[in-house]
Amino acid sequence: MQYSKSFIFTVREDPKVAECVSHKLLLKGSFLYMVSSGIYSYLPLGLRVLENVSNIIRKHMNASGAQEILMSALQPIEIWQKTGRDEVLSEVMLRFKDRKNRTLVLGPTHEEEVTEIVKKHISSYKQLPRILYQIQTKFRDEARPRFGVVRSCEFIMKDAYSFDVDEEGLARNYEAMRSAYQAIFKECGLNFIMTEAESGAMGGNVSHEFMVPAEIGEDMLCECQKCGKHFKDMSNCPECDSKLNERRMIEIGHVFKLGTKYSKAQEALFIDKDGVRKPVIMGCYGIGVSRVLAAIVETNYDDKGVIWPKSVSPFDVQFVCLDEKLIPEASSMVESLERNGFNVLFDERSEPAGVKFNDAYLLGNPYIVIIGKNYASSKKIDLEIRKTRQKTSLSEEELINFLKNEYGK
Amino acid sequence: MQYSKSFIFTVREDPKVAECVSHKLLLKGSFLYMVSSGIYSYLPLGLRVLENVSNIIRKHMNASGAQEILMSALQPIEIWQKTGRDEVLSEVMLRFKDRKNRTLVLGPTHEEEVTEIVKKHISSYKQLPRILYQIQTKFRDEARPRFGVVRSCEFIMKDAYSFDVDEEGLARNYEAMRSAYQAIFKECGLNFIMTEAESGAMGGNVSHEFMVPAEIGEDMLCECQKCGKHFKDMSNCPECDSKLNERRMIEIGHVFKLGTKYSKAQEALFIDKDGVRKPVIMGCYGIGVSRVLAAIVETNYDDKGVIWPKSVSPFDVQFVCLDEKLIPEASSMVESLERNGFNVLFDERSEPAGVKFNDAYLLGNPYIVIIGKNYASSKKIDLEIRKTRQKTSLSEEELINFLKNEYGK
Repeated sequence: MQYSKSFIFTVREDPKVAECVSHKLLLKGSFLYMVSSGIYSYLPLGLRVLENVSNIIRKHMNASGAQEILMSALQPIEIWQKTGRDEVLSEVMLRFKDRKNRTLVLGPTHEEEVTEIVKKHISSYKQLPRILYQIQTKFRDEARPRFGVVRSCEFIMKDAYSFDVDEEGLARNYEAMRSAYQAIFKECGLNFIMTEAESGAMGGNVSHEFMVPAEIGEDMLCECQKCGKHFKDMSNCPECDSKLNERRMIEIGHVFKLGTKYSKAQEALFIDKDGVRKPVIMGCYGIGVSRVLAAIVETNYDDKGVIWPKSVSPFDVQFVCLDEKLIPEASSMVESLERNGFNVLFDERSEPAGVKFNDAYLLGNPYIVIIGKNYASSKKIDLEIRKTRQKTSLSEEELINFLKNEYGK
Repeated sequence: MQYSKSFIFTVREDPKVAECVSHKLLLKGSFLYMVSSGIYSYLPLGLRVLENVSNIIRKHMNASGAQEILMSALQPIEIWQKTGRDEVLSEVMLRFKDRKNRTLVLGPTHEEEVTEIVKKHISSYKQLPRILYQIQTKFRDEARPRFGVVRSCEFIMKDAYSFDVDEEGLARNYEAMRSAYQAIFKECGLNFIMTEAESGAMGGNVSHEFMVPAEIGEDMLCECQKCGKHFKDMSNCPECDSKLNERRMIEIGHVFKLGTKYSKAQEALFIDKDGVRKPVIMGCYGIGVSRVLAAIVETNYDDKGVIWPKSVSPFDVQFVCLDEKLIPEASSMVESLERNGFNVLFDERSEPAGVKFNDAYLLGNPYIVIIGKNYASSKKIDLEIRKTRQKTSLSEEELINFLKNEYGK
């Protein structure tokens, strides 16, 4: 991608609307465009990160046997009335009548709809277990949308649902999802914490939260300084009775054992081996995909800009050419990098070096390659690692070998 | 993918709600789930086709220099008031107030929002031309949703927008999009027609439609039997004056030269080379992605089911094992096919041969491989081409070579 032809238009000044680091950097770097309070569009750079995060999620979900679907955002109010959640969630649920006088809901979540799908298609224990998931835009009438895509009215979620014949099956799928989540967040470069406590809410069933410690976190987690474990809504550690410290957290994932709450209310029944009709046993598993993007930035930046982990960065390499005369040599190196499977943002603009470096630091691609005046004599280019700011002079061949090694290619 | 673990649950009876062939076959084959009239969810098989179509679109859009973004579905009414389209489109526009008393619209299209994005980021001729596109869910309060995903209230569109400094630039981008569209529809296996006429509507600007002839088409196109060209709203051919015949068509794509209608109303201006502020010159280019899926089925089926073109089929091969004792041999062949880059649906269910064949025909994957009793003696498997129903006996090696050749691998 040539920078001069891209839709990357960074802003020098801090946007007035920015409420936190990730919000500021994602707007300054033209990753996001703010449509209105709590409503954002993804510009090309932001969409690249979002797709990288989504593909990491897909990889681990598919590996755990989950199958991807795409449910409608519009849902008839009737399915929500079956579970009574039209009232429970009424505050955040956007609803309206269409011209046929149907009351439609913009799905803030999809337990009801997926239960209808399973009710329609599954009738026997032979068709179980199954896990379905989707990566989809959700809508919530947020009282206080804030921190950019951390808490917004329109956001992207990965929501998964498991369906089992018994509690043992649910336990197996729940564990499969928990370990998929750990693999996903690790691969996204997040230092996350999983709450170990079993919550009494949601009808006494088990749930775990995945959290990233961050200043702007809206969830409070209690950390035991002695055994290092994390709990919610407790003052003393249930394991060693030490006093717990409070830390602010961004919630990025949540897994629940739902049991039969939805399948009973919606009559999603199957005939078991013993010939008896039983409600399907369910679990649900959410990841805030757009929030993961914000959480990555909140925990990976410096005073110059974002520092993307390799796994999700919009490009692998930002290739900065400081001398117009060197564009032919630079282009040939960029092509060679691309042939070797690297995504390169080639900064061939006629801009001062300072502007180019500022943009490279702000955008936060992990490797910055610089070709400048001394290339003619030395045939060396400079490689700067965005995170450590460490610089090395290398030949083209050495650069490619170094990057191949970094990316395990 | 093992069939017994998949979320593929075909239905033997024709669904009562089905209004046309594609609607019927997509429901029977569990490609789609009908949530409510005009509202559909994509089950795993349907999503696979949708992703294949989307990726063909992405390939050709990216090759033409367009950059992918993802705009919000929610939009403030104010941007629509600038162009007056809050009234023009009021019938199909779903709108509501949120709890902050903002009037929000569920975008039926995105000219206004993309113009705001360009207004925010582009101020100089040096930043032009650009093409942005997205593949996104759109919403319309349809008076008569029908024919499944042909005309629905929630649907997936690819919408692209070009931005230029002058009419010549617009003409270049318009041509680039027209030829990308031809490549896209061709690769999707569609026999499409492009209207050659220049329409007087939309403010005198040029527009072309891409149509697929189909019984359920809602658009009427006039065809000249003499010169073979197609026109809209005419009785005689403007080129040879012959009388035109009427044909029903499904519209799958539409390209427009918009000119400055939106950029003037929304003040999306740039400073040109001559130092003068001018409105950006725009074009817009739409493809009904979910409708393409329906159009493919409407024109590729027989009495047994769908016949997917190779480029978009959910799987390349449906591998049918007719004898449980042969599952080890069959599994090894499926793995070998997968190692060679083929997507295989492995039907290892304990179902009668008739059920398996019916499902293979209904689902419509292009190649059906059958391993049966005579494998033990002959070491041969049968290959059936879904479209022609032609059958051949082959060794495993011959099968792989045949498929490699078919897919150009």
